Amino acid sequence: MLDHLVRLYRQLKALARADLRSTEVHETIGEMAVLGARFLATECTRVQAVSRVPAKSYIVFRRQERVSRPVNEAIFCGDPNTLLTRLAHFTPDRLAELHVQDATALIYSVAMAFCAAIDVLKDRDKQTPATYFAIMVAHLIAVTLGVQPRTSIDVLHLEHEQVELPTDYVFDPGAGRSKIHLPVKTSTRERVIQVWAHQRVLDGVYGVGGLLGVLVVLAETKLDRQTLQVIEICLPRQWVLYQRFISQMDRIYYLDPPAAYLDLPNISVKPFGEFFRERARFTG
Amino acid sequence: MLDHLVRLYRQLKALARADLRSTEVHETIGEMAVLGARFLATECTRVQAVSRVPAKSYIVFRRQERVSRPVNEAIFCGDPNTLLTRLAHFTPDRLAELHVQDATALIYSVAMAFCAAIDVLKDRDKQTPATYFAIMVAHLIAVTLGVQPRTSIDVLHLEHEQVELPTDYVFDPGAGRSKIHLPVKTSTRERVIQVWAHQRVLDGVYGVGGLLGVLVVLAETKLDRQTLQVIEICLPRQWVLYQRFISQMDRIYYLDPPAAYLDLPNISVKPFGEFFRERARFTG
Repeated sequence: MLDHLVRLYRQLKALARADLRSTEVHETIGEMAVLGARFLATECTRVQAVSRVPAKSYIVFRRQERVSRPVNEAIFCGDPNTLLTRLAHFTPDRLAELHVQDATALIYSVAMAFCAAIDVLKDRDKQTPATYFAIMVAHLIAVTLGVQPRTSIDVLHLEHEQVELPTDYVFDPGAGRSKIHLPVKTSTRERVIQVWAHQRVLDGVYGVGGLLGVLVVLAETKLDRQTLQVIEICLPRQWVLYQRFISQMDRIYYLDPPAAYLDLPNISVKPFGEFFRERARFTG
Repeated sequence: MLDHLVRLYRQLKALARADLRSTEVHETIGEMAVLGARFLATECTRVQAVSRVPAKSYIVFRRQERVSRPVNEAIFCGDPNTLLTRLAHFTPDRLAELHVQDATALIYSVAMAFCAAIDVLKDRDKQTPATYFAIMVAHLIAVTLGVQPRTSIDVLHLEHEQVELPTDYVFDPGAGRSKIHLPVKTSTRERVIQVWAHQRVLDGVYGVGGLLGVLVVLAETKLDRQTLQVIEICLPRQWVLYQRFISQMDRIYYLDPPAAYLDLPNISVKPFGEFFRERARFTG
């Protein structure tokens, strides 16, 4: 089952490079999520974690010596057959029809089923879950906007030499519509200042408003592997400063939104399900 | 010898907290450097590394299974008695009298003797060398400027609540003189954008020019532990963009300056020995 999961992951990366909007990408993501959920349900032990996050309950999956990242119990659909059924809603149009919390929970489950499975497969492999999560989010947004993203942009093209700046995903839906700069992270922690700094460089090159900054994050949970305690690491006061003084992110979406970020005075932080409801902001 | 080194490190941290400019800090740094050099000379094997850096030759120190970071052979004074003699020059006034390359080499040797010793003592402990290096650099600059630095500043003090922003060292030499924002890193790599981003926040709070940004870096070398190949990881084109679009660093000083950074069109990158020659810029 694990070999199959790793094979699908390689396949997904190749398909995403070819066409991030394709049906094949959509189907491979669904297959990976269901297989991940089946693996977690049949070959791992589900253990209650000690949540220190108010009003949230977390579980972890254990296999031999390995423990997965914390999984939010209330929004994770761990039954592979139920998840398979719900995948019928895993398109931008159908997600927009769901309640925001149901849409967010579905995407969370699709993300988490694979990420938690990889956590217990290869300890400390952070790249595979992060890449999968970025492809999954970028796929949904590429289908929504109807364009392929790029991952580098030309800057300083007026000068003697051309400089390519590697970026997160950049979507350019064409004349008259805003470009979107899309960093995707499984968590942000203290390195999040990079997101605002990259946005500032893009503002400098394209002018403020030339590219809207949209950050999508899975969760901010941190697990103590000894005690199984789960905390959320949030820096709301720093975020307010970054948003005020470095650049302005248009939206920050979470799959498992930390309460500390939901009422900031100058940043719009929302559950990712909202994106599909308000997609007219980006496609209009 | 190693126990003694670790004890001195704890002592240095306590002394630095009390008064970074004190004679005790100066003397403890000297003692740590000489003891580190003696340990490397007597209890480690000096091995030639395979330098892929043009015109620079590197060695590493090996002890049992552990290998130190690469050490630039031309500028490292590895003989503990010679280093002890040269320490007489380890003050801002005396450093200013030396040739720039000799001043830089002396500070490099004082930094590297301890950092390389810790490398072979505790594998992958990056915090201890980084903290020692930061204290050593901040000590020299605090003595030069005649003031204690702070490591957080009040921002948004006009609003309802006070927000403290944790920062790198900030020196405030008083009315009519520029404040200095001093990040210190053993290497920068891809995270360096944080330095420009922090500077941008400070520019926002204090106004552009309110705090001069001065970055001090040990080296940008990277060692392949299998092949003992040494490369330098440099991102000069990104630096030019960061300096143009995020904020403006006043100076960037290196102990082992990468050639790739020495001729950038919009950033002044120099060997750290220059700081003492041009200190009137900061003290005047």
